[in-house]
Amino acid sequence: MNLLIINPDDIEAGKAVIRDKKRISHITDVLKKTSPGDSIKAGILNAECGTAEIISIANDEMTVLFKPDSEPPTPLPLKLVIAVPRPKVFRRILQQGTALGIKEFHFMRTWKTDKSYLLSPELSEKKIYRDLIIGLEQAKDTILPDVFIHPLFKPFAEDELPEISDNTVKITAHPGGEEFSSDSTESAYTLAIGPEGGFTPYEIELLEKTGFSTVHLGSRILRVETALPYIAGRLFR
Amino acid sequence: MNLLIINPDDIEAGKAVIRDKKRISHITDVLKKTSPGDSIKAGILNAECGTAEIISIANDEMTVLFKPDSEPPTPLPLKLVIAVPRPKVFRRILQQGTALGIKEFHFMRTWKTDKSYLLSPELSEKKIYRDLIIGLEQAKDTILPDVFIHPLFKPFAEDELPEISDNTVKITAHPGGEEFSSDSTESAYTLAIGPEGGFTPYEIELLEKTGFSTVHLGSRILRVETALPYIAGRLFR
Repeated sequence: MNLLIINPDDIEAGKAVIRDKKRISHITDVLKKTSPGDSIKAGILNAECGTAEIISIANDEMTVLFKPDSEPPTPLPLKLVIAVPRPKVFRRILQQGTALGIKEFHFMRTWKTDKSYLLSPELSEKKIYRDLIIGLEQAKDTILPDVFIHPLFKPFAEDELPEISDNTVKITAHPGGEEFSSDSTESAYTLAIGPEGGFTPYEIELLEKTGFSTVHLGSRILRVETALPYIAGRLFR
Repeated sequence: MNLLIINPDDIEAGKAVIRDKKRISHITDVLKKTSPGDSIKAGILNAECGTAEIISIANDEMTVLFKPDSEPPTPLPLKLVIAVPRPKVFRRILQQGTALGIKEFHFMRTWKTDKSYLLSPELSEKKIYRDLIIGLEQAKDTILPDVFIHPLFKPFAEDELPEISDNTVKITAHPGGEEFSSDSTESAYTLAIGPEGGFTPYEIELLEKTGFSTVHLGSRILRVETALPYIAGRLFR
């Protein structure tokens, strides 16, 4: 945790009360901030970054005084459209994607997506929120991403994806595609990533109809949690 | 596993016998290759890639006939010099770094490296080998990387690092550094990454004396397992 996220509902006249035991013990035990007067980096969810000065610590609650000093970092202009991966990887994609600055995640079911992945408790709103906050606190960001789950590929690709990907460069990362190249680093992208077994030819075709170029980004097959930051590094620099 | 790695010692006149139960069950249960005549992608450790045709399956052993057809993929011209992370992350760095094509890993102890990390059983030769093979099989590569553990920072940085990083662009990824920029995508790099708490000013100074530029690659603080593929994507495209 490089930044303490404060919920705007918990703040009054600059003061916020933290009751989450885990976060209090992180602040005292890991960050070694234990006394009134000590400061930590903090931010208001969906608003400014700044510092939180500890006012008091007592009975599993910590009161801090928040002082804003800066805007949150620039978002990554990348919308991610990705087959629902297995629950452990789902969590990693949310956390690291949020840390990378992605603000819009679209998880979808594809032909080769294991049905059980969609039933995982990790896909609940509450658990997703927890992982987004972990990602924000890692990267010192405050702007909560939007996460959507699309249980049917065809209507999603045909009816929703055109609008989602409007005014962006649309690419599908797929081993069969052409070598990716780009001179521009200024574009916004929509990036589609398939499941472990890949997209089917029919799915690739549907994506191409929506304007997605099928590209590969290197000859090596990477796990999705390695591929995502690698592609983010290649697209923006 | 996208490629079955065959040890050259296990092969005779093109035929190899696989006795590892895990890999046999991966081939039969996940890849669904169960009958003589079925083929899978394979490679000889430190040599060619090709296909392995199943000759026989019996009593926990599988005999395959290997036919080479291609060279392994090009290595990533990046030497990684990194503080020993906690054991779980150590394994991820080995696996994903190997999948990315890194052929030389230098893990070192720095001031802020937790001492217990160096005592982890994950640092044993046998366990490191296992993770390197996982990375190679992921990326369809056969060339085994070299992994070195350096228990003392100063003599490593002063006496060994100059030779290791000779003829490469030397960079230290560090939040305090200058924004990284590069026009060239042709260079070989040596990349230094600190521990969770960062390098100390003294360590940064020692690295700078050895010719390392201290740079940051974006304003977001990323976990090392996200930062490594992200940086690899930024350096080479």
